[in-house]
Amino acid sequence: MAVNVAGAGQTEQTCSIARTLEVLGERWTFVILREALAGVTRFADFREQLGVAPDVLSDRLATLVAAGVLEKRPYREPGARIRYGYHPTPAGEELRVVLGALQQWGDAHRPLDGGPTVERRAVDDGRLLSVAFVDDTGTAVPLDRVAFVKTAAYPS
Amino acid sequence: MAVNVAGAGQTEQTCSIARTLEVLGERWTFVILREALAGVTRFADFREQLGVAPDVLSDRLATLVAAGVLEKRPYREPGARIRYGYHPTPAGEELRVVLGALQQWGDAHRPLDGGPTVERRAVDDGRLLSVAFVDDTGTAVPLDRVAFVKTAAYPS
Repeated sequence: MAVNVAGAGQTEQTCSIARTLEVLGERWTFVILREALAGVTRFADFREQLGVAPDVLSDRLATLVAAGVLEKRPYREPGARIRYGYHPTPAGEELRVVLGALQQWGDAHRPLDGGPTVERRAVDDGRLLSVAFVDDTGTAVPLDRVAFVKTAAYPS
Repeated sequence: MAVNVAGAGQTEQTCSIARTLEVLGERWTFVILREALAGVTRFADFREQLGVAPDVLSDRLATLVAAGVLEKRPYREPGARIRYGYHPTPAGEELRVVLGALQQWGDAHRPLDGGPTVERRAVDDGRLLSVAFVDDTGTAVPLDRVAFVKTAAYPS
């Protein structure tokens, strides 16, 4: 998707969707982030989960660290050398909203026969959640009452 | 991102994030959808807004129509032949949540000096909105109380 952004020309420089996809759009990056948000932290576990080549995994983890989405933390297993785990930063946790929105749309409009493979639920009581627009009181606003409004900073 | 999905292997077949990006990830598709959700309907207007080559634009609009995200509607200007405009379907409107989530993250974590170029506001009174997880009562749930839970359909 970094290609898309380049391909989409000057307009895209100021598009925050494009800037987000510059971070996430690289091959493998999205699924690595998905695993990280599911609690995977160790290089070997990312490899096992995704079957991704080590050099590619190293590169993509570095991209996510450089983007401030993941952070490296040292850990040491008994008798082993110090290794580094990869943990979502607060900015990385905020990407949960993006992944949740993508999942929700895919489940609704690209469904599988077997049903959703992942659900979004409240930690407290397991109730099902959805991703929606909310106002500053934390109340959901229907989609047909939402507008994307260009600001003065919008390129003319 | 269709490439990513292929690249990510078997696991990705069942990932609704990947399935969504199969629709949206193609070069140009995202920005065309962004314009469509901003009210652009006419081929010539997409071209003018994006500076995209006609053959590419035709192909991407066809992708979005085939995916049920946009629908073609005939229109005729005085003295002109019948042409077709492209309008978001209900499924396309639901992608507003995805685009809103991407915008929100980019504005927060990839900010521009000039500030956001697009804001998400309520149609009724212009109050600022955000994209968040909500429960079935339409009440926002804090990010740290949200879990992604694998279902029985999750590939083992």
